[in-house]
Amino acid sequence: MKKLLLALLAVSAAYAQKIPKKNYEYINPLIGTERMGHTFPGATVPFGSVQLSPETDTIAFELNKKYNGAVYAYCAGYQYKDKTITGFSHTHFSGTGHSDLGDFLLMPTTGALQLNPGTADKPGSGYRSAFSHTNEVAKANYYKVLLDDHNITAELTASTRVGFHRYTFPKKETAHIVFDLMAGIYNHNNKNVWTFVRVENDTLVTGYRQTRGWGRTRTVYFAMAFSKPIKNYGAQTYDKDNIYNGFWRKFDQTKNFPEAAAQNLKMYFDFDVEAGGQVLFKMALSPVSTQGALANMNTEINHWDFDRTVSEGQQLWEQELNKISVDMLTEEDKVNFYTAMYHAFINPTVYMDADGQYKGIDQNVHKAGGFTNYTTFSLWDTYRALHPLFNVVQPKRNHDMMLSMLAHYDQSVHHALPVWSHYANENWCMIGYHAVSVLADGIVKGVLTTDLDKALEACIASSNLEYYDGIADYKKYGYVPEDRSGSSVSKTLEYAYDDWCIARLAEKLGKKDVAAEYDRRAKSFNSVWDEKSGFMRPRLANGDFKKEFDPLDTHGQGFIEGNAWNYSLYIPHSPEAIIKLNGGAEKFAQHLDSLFFMQLPDKYFEHTEDITRDGIIGNYVHGNEPSHHVAYMYNWVKKPWKTQERIRMILGRMYKPTTDGLGGNDDTGQMSAWYIFSALGFYPVAPGSVAYELGSPLVKKATLHLENGNTFTITAKNQSSKNIYVQKVELNGKRITGTTITHNDIMNGGTLVFYMGKKPVK
Amino acid sequence: MKKLLLALLAVSAAYAQKIPKKNYEYINPLIGTERMGHTFPGATVPFGSVQLSPETDTIAFELNKKYNGAVYAYCAGYQYKDKTITGFSHTHFSGTGHSDLGDFLLMPTTGALQLNPGTADKPGSGYRSAFSHTNEVAKANYYKVLLDDHNITAELTASTRVGFHRYTFPKKETAHIVFDLMAGIYNHNNKNVWTFVRVENDTLVTGYRQTRGWGRTRTVYFAMAFSKPIKNYGAQTYDKDNIYNGFWRKFDQTKNFPEAAAQNLKMYFDFDVEAGGQVLFKMALSPVSTQGALANMNTEINHWDFDRTVSEGQQLWEQELNKISVDMLTEEDKVNFYTAMYHAFINPTVYMDADGQYKGIDQNVHKAGGFTNYTTFSLWDTYRALHPLFNVVQPKRNHDMMLSMLAHYDQSVHHALPVWSHYANENWCMIGYHAVSVLADGIVKGVLTTDLDKALEACIASSNLEYYDGIADYKKYGYVPEDRSGSSVSKTLEYAYDDWCIARLAEKLGKKDVAAEYDRRAKSFNSVWDEKSGFMRPRLANGDFKKEFDPLDTHGQGFIEGNAWNYSLYIPHSPEAIIKLNGGAEKFAQHLDSLFFMQLPDKYFEHTEDITRDGIIGNYVHGNEPSHHVAYMYNWVKKPWKTQERIRMILGRMYKPTTDGLGGNDDTGQMSAWYIFSALGFYPVAPGSVAYELGSPLVKKATLHLENGNTFTITAKNQSSKNIYVQKVELNGKRITGTTITHNDIMNGGTLVFYMGKKPVK
Repeated sequence: MKKLLLALLAVSAAYAQKIPKKNYEYINPLIGTERMGHTFPGATVPFGSVQLSPETDTIAFELNKKYNGAVYAYCAGYQYKDKTITGFSHTHFSGTGHSDLGDFLLMPTTGALQLNPGTADKPGSGYRSAFSHTNEVAKANYYKVLLDDHNITAELTASTRVGFHRYTFPKKETAHIVFDLMAGIYNHNNKNVWTFVRVENDTLVTGYRQTRGWGRTRTVYFAMAFSKPIKNYGAQTYDKDNIYNGFWRKFDQTKNFPEAAAQNLKMYFDFDVEAGGQVLFKMALSPVSTQGALANMNTEINHWDFDRTVSEGQQLWEQELNKISVDMLTEEDKVNFYTAMYHAFINPTVYMDADGQYKGIDQNVHKAGGFTNYTTFSLWDTYRALHPLFNVVQPKRNHDMMLSMLAHYDQSVHHALPVWSHYANENWCMIGYHAVSVLADGIVKGVLTTDLDKALEACIASSNLEYYDGIADYKKYGYVPEDRSGSSVSKTLEYAYDDWCIARLAEKLGKKDVAAEYDRRAKSFNSVWDEKSGFMRPRLANGDFKKEFDPLDTHGQGFIEGNAWNYSLYIPHSPEAIIKLNGGAEKFAQHLDSLFFMQLPDKYFEHTEDITRDGIIGNYVHGNEPSHHVAYMYNWVKKPWKTQERIRMILGRMYKPTTDGLGGNDDTGQMSAWYIFSALGFYPVAPGSVAYELGSPLVKKATLHLENGNTFTITAKNQSSKNIYVQKVELNGKRITGTTITHNDIMNGGTLVFYMGKKPVK
Repeated sequence: MKKLLLALLAVSAAYAQKIPKKNYEYINPLIGTERMGHTFPGATVPFGSVQLSPETDTIAFELNKKYNGAVYAYCAGYQYKDKTITGFSHTHFSGTGHSDLGDFLLMPTTGALQLNPGTADKPGSGYRSAFSHTNEVAKANYYKVLLDDHNITAELTASTRVGFHRYTFPKKETAHIVFDLMAGIYNHNNKNVWTFVRVENDTLVTGYRQTRGWGRTRTVYFAMAFSKPIKNYGAQTYDKDNIYNGFWRKFDQTKNFPEAAAQNLKMYFDFDVEAGGQVLFKMALSPVSTQGALANMNTEINHWDFDRTVSEGQQLWEQELNKISVDMLTEEDKVNFYTAMYHAFINPTVYMDADGQYKGIDQNVHKAGGFTNYTTFSLWDTYRALHPLFNVVQPKRNHDMMLSMLAHYDQSVHHALPVWSHYANENWCMIGYHAVSVLADGIVKGVLTTDLDKALEACIASSNLEYYDGIADYKKYGYVPEDRSGSSVSKTLEYAYDDWCIARLAEKLGKKDVAAEYDRRAKSFNSVWDEKSGFMRPRLANGDFKKEFDPLDTHGQGFIEGNAWNYSLYIPHSPEAIIKLNGGAEKFAQHLDSLFFMQLPDKYFEHTEDITRDGIIGNYVHGNEPSHHVAYMYNWVKKPWKTQERIRMILGRMYKPTTDGLGGNDDTGQMSAWYIFSALGFYPVAPGSVAYELGSPLVKKATLHLENGNTFTITAKNQSSKNIYVQKVELNGKRITGTTITHNDIMNGGTLVFYMGKKPVK
């Protein structure tokens, strides 16, 4: 509660100042920065290439083994409870369940130069500094903190490809800016491959960094410009087995020598500053070259007006957030809603230079022809609600994301769509070929209208990539045998859904044969249904179900990020089928109730990195994705009031406007997209279909300002925290009989009115 | 003598077959492959990017420490006395005194797959194979060897950017082609930074390799096409601390999985072959991208006619060699002469794609505008005679080399010309800023007529790069103090000569002030002359000469690759000055005689990697460069017959048409250029001047077919191995009184006739 109050303090202060408040002012980037939300508090613009944010425990090379276990908590580089900041780096994932990035850490210091970050348990050691949340401000595209050890105020902002720093120094002195090229997120084992730096002149530094982290072959180029001349600078290498040391040996290359390269490199830049004096600098990134980075800087921020960049970024956020104007019951809800939009609009990220050039997965440089190229596709998460949300409020961007996926397909040696696209890498994270869902959904909904045959070809190719994750077996056996490939049931079920998406796409293109073939594959869920246990259950290649089986356990049972209870409900494209398998509507409704209200023993949380008590209601796991559609399934058994109850429960328990307010990793916006849809009153249970299932809106009113110029208004009459039950729904003044609206209902513009009440309508 | 006979056998066989013999048929690539010549026997075209050649002891990662000491012998990857071949790689320096390259080693094998090369001392271990010189053929652009262990015949040829392999297998079987991306020259400490491979389809493989060898940040891209489909393939990684193993763990990525990346990677490709069946493949390189490599392949060799490529490359050699038609006293001399031309025309190497794109030293991709971009500038060696030779017979190429140096200057963060330019790296090898000599010589001789102001600017900037190798001190003290920078006398003397070059360039451009300033700096040799010892001698910052001093020792005496005896003669721009310092003509002539005829104790050869008995005559060191002009200095003391004696002695003793025939590292052609000039009868003692000093020609007749269309003919009447003394010289029928001709004398075309006799004309 204390945290909640703190969070609201900032909001209230701003609120008191000016009315009406701008939507971006409701953004609180600190939400989710504690425990497992894995969000970052720093500065970014919508879908920006740069996410400039503090690191609180960058696991540096020197610390190596010690912090191995801590890697997961630092996916976004920052944990709210930490007491020290090691510096500010320029790339961060938002809400992922695996860590990487953290490129180009810079830290201003005073006093004796220290190039080692030191450790959190020894305050004052190294260049890191203590800080306090009372001296910390996190807003849309603005972050500020006082570094206590040095009494330096650091402020951060960004444009799409440029991070902008402003450091204010306390007294006349020679200050240092440490540039630790060895620092990075997920660096416990030293992921650096190579770093290269040139001091072009006394205000410009360029270079690049190549890492082999989660992204195996990843290079980021930079150009960094300082607002005032560097007085002195230096480089230190930490390579153990430099094969040829002549470069460093021949004459002193450690001080004021403008070129440095090594696997392990740190640099520093000294500046003469006055009391209250400032050093500003801009760090532009590029996936292509230092030339590209410099051009990006000149294109995006050709001035030293830090406040202007803050403001321009906030205007970008305002534009994005204005796509949905909401009235909510409380200011807290508005913080939740607009912060969810904020988190939903951070990833995927723009991955190309201002001139359209980008590095492809083939490692060659390509030029995006007529579209913006994106990366950071965490598709196992985001096909469910994030991309469908984009189809409503970001169709132009989702259109370009689909083209980015097709470009990936073109450039992939696997001739496959991305699984987890990551800075010109495929990191193969999680399972499925869910890009097909994004393409089918986007095409069925008319968001992508070109390249359709190619899209189908890409989907078919991806679904037949036989060496990938059991697909050959899936085609041969009709399911993935557990004795041949782990997480076999999850794979079978997700491939079945993906295949259904391909069928819908084929149907849309009039390819009946293809549709029939994939509709057949889409029924593969039947192959893993165990009538005896009443669950989806792993099967062996010989046809037997696996003997040992605990439907509550998440590990080693044939599932991933879910147990049999949750995954057995995963036939998003055919809830009817799962209802039938479960013995019909009544039995299924009871089964769902059991899911939500059972008491799951603690042992099922042990060793489960991404499922914590935070994200669980009964045995329903909201912190992971496989059950995100489940609360809406009561609609299929004519108990929509139970859907309404569950949705309002989940909205209230899993999303709080506090630093520890997220029930799980935000997963590059999927969790937030679930919130936005559900708060608006509907949800895409089966992307690839144009249907949205109605729930119980949390908004009092929401106006969707669509890119096609139409306006779609959602009103919840008699909305309150108690009036969670929908009494009736009217679309454009006409009562809806079922529990469904369609994509066109929304995109054509109009009004959707929910009449709310405190009693369920049974 | 046996070796000599062997070498001649090949020549004689060809000779018997067809008369007149082509010049390229005199090339014997095996010359210099034994002991310290550091040449390679494999296939290349003139100035080609690819030098495809066998490795006889690639020091692989696994062998690590054991072979440390052997690195120097393997600068070119091949030592004639070795009994095994580990494979064929695509990049080789010719004649350098430091090793690197050896990119993309491939080896055909049969039987059980072995990915380890094994060791030379255990024949049969690993994939390496025994071989015999009786089954080895090395010609211009063609190399053939029988791999005894596998009974496979391997043949190699090349175009500028493509290596072409033809392997003939002995019986029906599944053969392997091992692709060892961990192999490399100078690899004792594992220079690999990163490797990346894609199997694009069943006949095409692409990728790149990044190393941190002598070239610190060096990446070579490739595209490799096979003549028949790969049956199976696989990848093995040897990384110890892969930070994220998910790529390899998730599903089997070791077999038939088309993408691999790691620091340490080996691959293999299996093919079904018949008895006598062949697998051909083409390996194209690019400094830019795999796209570039593939385009290079398609541009240069769009067929599978191996013999055609051999022949086309030989025609290119014939064109180059035809620039000087020679009659010699013996066929051996012709082998020497044309092999010297061959070695002189291997480096510098073309460093750009067929479309003109190349990687600059700034690591960005640039496009050469209207010139061919070159790398591999071993300038401390080559400014002396190789670039001057190019000004005579390769002015178009030298013109482009100068533009390449200016592009390097543009892209260098040091704003300096190259010292040792090496695949978009500056490796800072040796001393001086001798690119200024190349530019001054080329401009004074009218080879470069554009960008002159920029050239002067670049020279001035390079000579004032204060953090480089004692330049600040040189400017401050008038010499480099030995207590502040090692090899101080060599630096002082070479800077002085370089400064004289800048003065000549400035003079040519009418910049009198600049010329005066640099003429002043050019006299810096006076600062290190020690009247007492009669040698150039290291001086300390306090002005004192260093006390301990052994003018015979090469180490720790203030010199590099030379002792005080040799270096004290290094004022190429002012022999008059050194004569005066030595007490006048008579004394100086005696001093020179002492140099050539003294007996140097053995101890002076210990621990001296680049000076061996092979390269020494008395105390005159021909195996290193600083004295290359010295034999011509008798001309200044009116004893040209002594120059003539020395030249013919050096020609005979330092250049033999045998595998161990070179008196030292060929130094990317400098040694060969010395031979060519001296065999023609003249030598550029001071590049930057248009004068050539006359010696004693070895040719009977030589016709220079100049690029400007003119013909310059050198005739040595009464030439014989005894008639080494020049009786008189006529230029265009007019007797020459001095010992000098000028560049224009040559380039205008005409005739130079030496009248030879057995007695010196005193």
